[in-house]
Formats: sequence, structure tokens, C-alpha cells
Amino acid sequence: MESKTDKAAIRAVIEGIEKAMHERDARAVFAHYIPDAVIFDLAPPLVSAMGTDPAKLEAWFAGWEGPIDRVTRDLVVTTDRDFAFAHGLSRTSATTRNGERAVFWTRFTMGLKRIGGRWKIVHEHESVPFYMDGSFRAAIDLEP
Amino acid sequence: MESKTDKAAIRAVIEGIEKAMHERDARAVFAHYIPDAVIFDLAPPLVSAMGTDPAKLEAWFAGWEGPIDRVTRDLVVTTDRDFAFAHGLSRTSATTRNGERAVFWTRFTMGLKRIGGRWKIVHEHESVPFYMDGSFRAAIDLEP
Repeated sequence: MESKTDKAAIRAVIEGIEKAMHERDARAVFAHYIPDAVIFDLAPPLVSAMGTDPAKLEAWFAGWEGPIDRVTRDLVVTTDRDFAFAHGLSRTSATTRNGERAVFWTRFTMGLKRIGGRWKIVHEHESVPFYMDGSFRAAIDLEP
Repeated sequence: MESKTDKAAIRAVIEGIEKAMHERDARAVFAHYIPDAVIFDLAPPLVSAMGTDPAKLEAWFAGWEGPIDRVTRDLVVTTDRDFAFAHGLSRTSATTRNGERAVFWTRFTMGLKRIGGRWKIVHEHESVPFYMDGSFRAAIDLEP
């Protein structure tokens, strides 16, 4: 049975990650994941072992100045008992160390399980498409 | 309750798609999807409207000579009643119109629902990462 309460709880997980990104708090981000979550990340490798290592995310944070703002759009959450998946689009905006403002859209899909009464991310897939025009450029300039 | 039978059925869906790709049969591929599946594809846009349009897949097939071979690795299937998700890695190998052999690995995540007794893909996310070295190149040369 789909539950409105569960959908709200999963929305709250995503908002919690947005808040933690804004505050550049890698530990708070990964508090929403199981330690051995299977992560298909924006950056190589294909599968991120240690994907939930705060040091790795902190290193990424270090490339940016100030808060990293992330807004979710077109979120679809499906729940069934202790299991859920969610997908949507993220708009990330932040300022590089060189003072340039960067804005880019990504797609995400998450699998979640309810463990000890809390929804935790067990799988995450985040990406941009790439141009099939022979350039093989990552399409970081798309808007929905 | 997780069911071995359901996991086998979802594995059969993926094998059915592999067979249809080998036979270049776009309709047989999309027989495994609901018509309004939300697809985050390898190519732009961010979200593929008409992602299950056989003509679009046929146009992609036209870039290749002979069968398109796809093998799945590291498949993880989670089922709970009428709902499932699956993720894994795909190795695609095919010959271009210019006679070049191409092999590339992608990551995929699928959401599925049991509809009328059959598992159908309601969401699919397929991607490669990109190099965060300033080149923004799609990482189509990775191996697991």
C-alpha cells in the first residue's frame, strides 16, 4: 500500500540532503545512506566503492566557494511497505574557487529501504546524458 | 516478502531486452516497458519523452551493422510484492557502419511494477559518468 506519510518521509530525506549540501556537511549527507550503498556517481568509476566516504565528498566541496545549492524538480516517489524508489531532476548551483557561478541539471534515481523505522538510501544513480554527435561531451548544459 | 520467482522473472525481462537488442527488434524491446515510462537515457534530453518510441530506437540501431550484443553484470534485484528495482552494469558490443568494433560499459537502474501479472519497466536510468578533469568528456572507456 502506498502511504502519503512514507512519501513525505522520503521527500524529507531528499530535503535533508539538500540542507546538508548547502551546509557543506558531508557526514550529514551520508547519514541518509547505508554504508555499503551502491552508487553510480557523476564522476568515474562506473560504480563508486566507498561512495559514502565523507572525505571524497569533502574533496569535491573544496572545489566550491560557499554553499552548494541543490533544488529538486519533477520528483516521483513510489513506496511499497519497506521499500521505495524515487527519481527526479536536480538543479545544482554554486560558485567555483575562481568566483564563477555554475548551474547544472542532473537526473537522479534512488532506491530506499526502511531500516529501523528510517528510510535509508541503498542505491543511487546520478548522471547527465552525453552528446551522440561524435564529440562524446557530457551534456551539463541541458535544462528540463 | 522477496520472491526468488519474481527475481527470476525480472532477470528474464532483462534477458528479453538483450535478445531483442541482438535481433534489432525495437518493438520487442519496448514490450517490456509501460508506454509512459520515465526514461533517463544515455543521449539528451534529460528526460526522454517518447522514450519508448520504436522509431527512435530503430534510428539508433541504424548506426550499427549486425547484432547489438548486450551482456549484464553485477545485477542486483530487489522485489517487494508488486514492485521492484534492479541495477547493474551493461557491456554493449556492436559494429559501426564503418566496420569498427565498439565496446562500452554503462550503468543502469530500473523501476518495475507487476501489471496484469507481468513485470513492466516504469522507470529506467542509463548512463556513463563524465571526467571531472575540466574536459567534461563522457567516460565511455571505463571497465568495471
